Amino acid sequence: MKQLRWGMIGGGKGAFIGGAHRIAAKIANSYEFIGGVLDVDFERAKEFALEENLDLQRVYPDMDSFIRGEKSMPSNQRMEVVSIVTPNFLHFTQAKKLLQNGFHVICEKPVTFTSSEATELKELAESNQLVFCLTHTYTGYPMVREMKRRIESGAVGTLQRVDVQYLQGWINPIIHGGEAKLATWRLDPAVSGISSCMGDIGVHAFNLLEYTTGLKVKKVLAVLNNLKPENPLDLDGNVLLQFDENLTGIIRSSQIATGEENNLQISVYGTKGGFHWEQEHPNELKMLHEGAPFEVIKPGYDFLSDFAKESFVLPPGHPEGIYEAFGNLYKGAAKAIRKMSLAPGQFPGIDDGIRGMRFIESVVESHRENNTWVSL
Amino acid sequence: MKQLRWGMIGGGKGAFIGGAHRIAAKIANSYEFIGGVLDVDFERAKEFALEENLDLQRVYPDMDSFIRGEKSMPSNQRMEVVSIVTPNFLHFTQAKKLLQNGFHVICEKPVTFTSSEATELKELAESNQLVFCLTHTYTGYPMVREMKRRIESGAVGTLQRVDVQYLQGWINPIIHGGEAKLATWRLDPAVSGISSCMGDIGVHAFNLLEYTTGLKVKKVLAVLNNLKPENPLDLDGNVLLQFDENLTGIIRSSQIATGEENNLQISVYGTKGGFHWEQEHPNELKMLHEGAPFEVIKPGYDFLSDFAKESFVLPPGHPEGIYEAFGNLYKGAAKAIRKMSLAPGQFPGIDDGIRGMRFIESVVESHRENNTWVSL
Amino acid sequence: MKQLRWGMIGGGKGAFIGGAHRIAAKIANSYEFIGGVLDVDFERAKEFALEENLDLQRVYPDMDSFIRGEKSMPSNQRMEVVSIVTPNFLHFTQAKKLLQNGFHVICEKPVTFTSSEATELKELAESNQLVFCLTHTYTGYPMVREMKRRIESGAVGTLQRVDVQYLQGWINPIIHGGEAKLATWRLDPAVSGISSCMGDIGVHAFNLLEYTTGLKVKKVLAVLNNLKPENPLDLDGNVLLQFDENLTGIIRSSQIATGEENNLQISVYGTKGGFHWEQEHPNELKMLHEGAPFEVIKPGYDFLSDFAKESFVLPPGHPEGIYEAFGNLYKGAAKAIRKMSLAPGQFPGIDDGIRGMRFIESVVESHRENNTWVSL
Amino acid sequence: MKQLRWGMIGGGKGAFIGGAHRIAAKIANSYEFIGGVLDVDFERAKEFALEENLDLQRVYPDMDSFIRGEKSMPSNQRMEVVSIVTPNFLHFTQAKKLLQNGFHVICEKPVTFTSSEATELKELAESNQLVFCLTHTYTGYPMVREMKRRIESGAVGTLQRVDVQYLQGWINPIIHGGEAKLATWRLDPAVSGISSCMGDIGVHAFNLLEYTTGLKVKKVLAVLNNLKPENPLDLDGNVLLQFDENLTGIIRSSQIATGEENNLQISVYGTKGGFHWEQEHPNELKMLHEGAPFEVIKPGYDFLSDFAKESFVLPPGHPEGIYEAFGNLYKGAAKAIRKMSLAPGQFPGIDDGIRGMRFIESVVESHRENNTWVSL
Repeated sequence: MKQLRWGMIGGGKGAFIGGAHRIAAKIANSYEFIGGVLDVDFERAKEFALEENLDLQRVYPDMDSFIRGEKSMPSNQRMEVVSIVTPNFLHFTQAKKLLQNGFHVICEKPVTFTSSEATELKELAESNQLVFCLTHTYTGYPMVREMKRRIESGAVGTLQRVDVQYLQGWINPIIHGGEAKLATWRLDPAVSGISSCMGDIGVHAFNLLEYTTGLKVKKVLAVLNNLKPENPLDLDGNVLLQFDENLTGIIRSSQIATGEENNLQISVYGTKGGFHWEQEHPNELKMLHEGAPFEVIKPGYDFLSDFAKESFVLPPGHPEGIYEAFGNLYKGAAKAIRKMSLAPGQFPGIDDGIRGMRFIESVVESHRENNTWVSL
Repeated sequence: MKQLRWGMIGGGKGAFIGGAHRIAAKIANSYEFIGGVLDVDFERAKEFALEENLDLQRVYPDMDSFIRGEKSMPSNQRMEVVSIVTPNFLHFTQAKKLLQNGFHVICEKPVTFTSSEATELKELAESNQLVFCLTHTYTGYPMVREMKRRIESGAVGTLQRVDVQYLQGWINPIIHGGEAKLATWRLDPAVSGISSCMGDIGVHAFNLLEYTTGLKVKKVLAVLNNLKPENPLDLDGNVLLQFDENLTGIIRSSQIATGEENNLQISVYGTKGGFHWEQEHPNELKMLHEGAPFEVIKPGYDFLSDFAKESFVLPPGHPEGIYEAFGNLYKGAAKAIRKMSLAPGQFPGIDDGIRGMRFIESVVESHRENNTWVSL
Repeated sequence: MKQLRWGMIGGGKGAFIGGAHRIAAKIANSYEFIGGVLDVDFERAKEFALEENLDLQRVYPDMDSFIRGEKSMPSNQRMEVVSIVTPNFLHFTQAKKLLQNGFHVICEKPVTFTSSEATELKELAESNQLVFCLTHTYTGYPMVREMKRRIESGAVGTLQRVDVQYLQGWINPIIHGGEAKLATWRLDPAVSGISSCMGDIGVHAFNLLEYTTGLKVKKVLAVLNNLKPENPLDLDGNVLLQFDENLTGIIRSSQIATGEENNLQISVYGTKGGFHWEQEHPNELKMLHEGAPFEVIKPGYDFLSDFAKESFVLPPGHPEGIYEAFGNLYKGAAKAIRKMSLAPGQFPGIDDGIRGMRFIESVVESHRENNTWVSL
Repeated sequence: MKQLRWGMIGGGKGAFIGGAHRIAAKIANSYEFIGGVLDVDFERAKEFALEENLDLQRVYPDMDSFIRGEKSMPSNQRMEVVSIVTPNFLHFTQAKKLLQNGFHVICEKPVTFTSSEATELKELAESNQLVFCLTHTYTGYPMVREMKRRIESGAVGTLQRVDVQYLQGWINPIIHGGEAKLATWRLDPAVSGISSCMGDIGVHAFNLLEYTTGLKVKKVLAVLNNLKPENPLDLDGNVLLQFDENLTGIIRSSQIATGEENNLQISVYGTKGGFHWEQEHPNELKMLHEGAPFEVIKPGYDFLSDFAKESFVLPPGHPEGIYEAFGNLYKGAAKAIRKMSLAPGQFPGIDDGIRGMRFIESVVESHRENNTWVSL
């Protein structure tokens, strides 16, 4: 199949997240990497472009020359879709410019710094009929998708309790490392936005919750912890949730859960049973039943939903990982760009971005307002 | 060693919890079962006494005849220690009467219905120099005790995050089972007290948290869920915690986590590492380290603390379970009754009971007061 | 219920295995500990008897005085059942004497040093209508019993592969500890018999295999490893198995699997599915299905077989351990002694002892005969 | 970096294993897919080539035209390296032709049908100074590589016991599916070779054992099971191993372990500790220690060996899977082709192929010769 002409903003030499996007795009088998604005240092960008065997004509020093250069190309050569993998504070302006100029966008999260910015992007994407994919990668795991489909079909009945945790420990040595370490961009609001822990990972937990359950969080009540007075951003917190329905909900998240790696877990319980899934063991979905043994659902079987089956290539017992989950988002975005009909939920979009920003804003507000309920 | 003369209030034929106490006492190898008030139905009590080969003289129809009968015995024959395993609403008056009359008491939780009642018991126990043991069984597990000792010794540094969960699903079929089922004593405040989920299991989570970390919860903010308007008691909830120190704390508990059995877990994180323990796999204590592989600590080894070593008899790999944990509390109480010197923490006492009642009261108040902070 | 009058041969002060038998007997709630020959040192025996509040009249210096003393008692006071927990080389003569004199016997394994001795015990037990219980403890676990019943009922179809492993590491420091350590009784054939690893634990694996599957091993082909030429006994080995049916079988066992504790596992596979069980997590039975998710079966549920339900007292999620498994054997033996009707498989008997001895003899012979097939 | 010009023999539309090679090559980021002999049906090959955007000039109907066509290209356009992913019986002649004509080869296993054929390939590769990579994928997992390095460095002391299992269940429905199903090519010796289970997966277990431990198996004693007389090939078996050193070794393998997916596990034990690794949870390496808690080693940390660090890109807790392991082999082969210096063990080569063929031959011979020892 013809590959989509694909570019990147950011993601040059040594960029971990940029590399992950390239592998995801390769696995999706629908993207040809053409060029982009690969580095703030243009010389390094060109070096990297050579390594990647790119045509240097398509490697640009900045956004403006990128727009100008690509727009001057005939439409059958022009890049069609562009991934944004720059620092958080640049996402909004870059995405906006791309959408205004007719490029489909795949964007790292957080989509913007505010929900109103995200809403602006939504309007642009819609009016220009462009695809906007937000890389909440965890929604690409086949067992997450199976859980989503089973919850939709009523497999566990009406939900009564939802509980998502996202625990990491990597900021622990930074926060305890003295002044120099605290000066990191990660804890600088100008670069990272209004929240560290909730903005970086809490929002993934929130997205996973809404994605798998189909529920919408109505209000939040949050307690955040910056650990040290000189640190301006939250590193840890717990968020109580209210829904339209009567059920209990919570999101717990930390970047100072020392020794934890990337411990994202979701547990949901309904009137008939429950599910438990852990990101670090992504190919096992535990399904609990009332009065019967629990089952462990794994990918690669005929009995799974079509959505899960599309999302896993190998036979049972051959572990696919996060690159493949990521590749599933890229596949979904490619199908949307090619205007193929597709089931909902193939990739998170700008609506997820708006919800996520509202989550972050509401959580920060709730904490500031002495842990009161704030509507999303 | 001479066995302690031991009686029971409640716990007759078919009583699950009474049987567990008897096995715990046998494992502790320090208690001779003599008699008591074994059943509200005196005929059934006597039948049961025969099965247990008790002297019928020591089996009484009610508390008053028990007190009278035992007090009339010479002191070297009189029962020394009595376990209370009756429905919750009876604990206070029975414990009070026993303490007033010079009996050491081992009491099922909740100790009372109010913290002021619990305080009254404390005064009685102290003024009469009597042992009061409250059966928060989970504190008897060897790996819980190892965790406690390691936290005390600073093994994970200063705590930053504590998170305890206690999830069960057994009320799910009751709450969805129609009017008849809702009429169960478990959901009747007159019998169960002001709280179902928090009173029955949330308080275990609270006790485990304070026991292992040595921290004292200062304030709580709770959201509880009764699920149905016609149900007067909470079945599920999340409780945010404040401490004197700056750390994040939470207790999550449910009786409608469908498919969960007895899923009590604790995770604590400090500046240097963390611990994770699960009641359903009690012989494995996961210890997390910053920048190093996590370890799984198991009982039966020389490298363990003395406290853990005393609390596990068998060689490594021979699973001990909850009866043995329970037996450890009975052992601790026996040592205290015999006035042997012993390290602190051998069994939960009346102070734990007061703390637990304050926890339940504060949680219920916080929920009623629209999820505001309430001091313990 | 009237308790059985119960004595012990061996098992005095500090004897780990004797203590385990006493707890098992207590949990079984059918045995009153009366006395016995508790120690080779009679003074220590008496000290221990005082601690246990035994009548010193019933504590004997040796087997002959024991037999004489008990036989002189009226039959309604005489001990009914006696447990043998002495070193291996004494089991045969002691069991023989007890059976000849009308005592039911509960015996630690190995039952004897040779299969012909075991056959002699069988004849004595049968001709005197006495119960003989051999403590292959692992058969007492509720999930082992559930597996047995399900295999019997055809849940996994016709068996195709059976694989049992029993790995320990505790001899590793002994074998590498120099001459002094090698002089341990454990590696002395005069005390331990013809085999260390296979005789001590391989035989448990063998028993578990025959117990759960109902299969009879027909031939074995073994490779054993003594590790050092100066060590007379096997510490490790693998045993290939032949059955009447066409299926693949193996037993793997080691006492030098450094770092392993008591890692007994069984995996069986049939035409329709399979089972996997691990002794260190005894309350989880994994059931594999063709083309469907695997299930994890746990105790405490109505859907279990009667046999499993009888073998577990507590509600789901309350871990019972090896003492309770052991108690289940004591319960089974008590029922048999009381001539209550009972389903088969309640406790291993002298036939298991004969099979086990034949297993050990055949394995040692196969190894000596250059790894050829030897019939059991 | 300049990409290697890369072709495939086999692996066209719908070929699962071909797709896996392409993803591995993409992850390795060193291979440009140019063309090859993609399908026995040339029309389908061309269709597939269009989908992959290949130049149809480089897509050939058969090996001869491939050789002719590529040899006619200037050397800076000619394909440099070719992957063979055809049915087993074709590997030898195709690999031979490629090596004779100067192409580096990446070959699916089994490399050939006999060890003498494999030796012929070795001579060809050496005399032509060509790289030959055999895709024993499991050696590409970072934690396998960490285990290898730690064993080399003496972390667990001298080895005493090695035990590898490879259990699958997928042939179960075939073998029980009646005549039609038995006619599958998988059970046809003309297509599959002299062994099914040992040839397909037992040999992976063998390779993993020699790769991680550095040991060489000297002799094997095997029992194989065809399950049904009408089935010509083994589906299951156990293989006892002898080494020059005194240690116990075994390989267990099955394709009729119903319900198992791809359950490859290795356990090794030395004088100081042990390792346990499972392919279905590839990012966890359990390290056992004598008298100390076991550790779980995971990728992404500084404390790991360089080899493991090179073999895992993402931060801790982001699961990489089998594609990435496979990509590591492709990376290793690319480095070798580019004549970069590289540590040994980067990819399995023709020597592994010869060893593997000798393993299969010896196992089949041992079984046929009534389970006697056969030298490799």
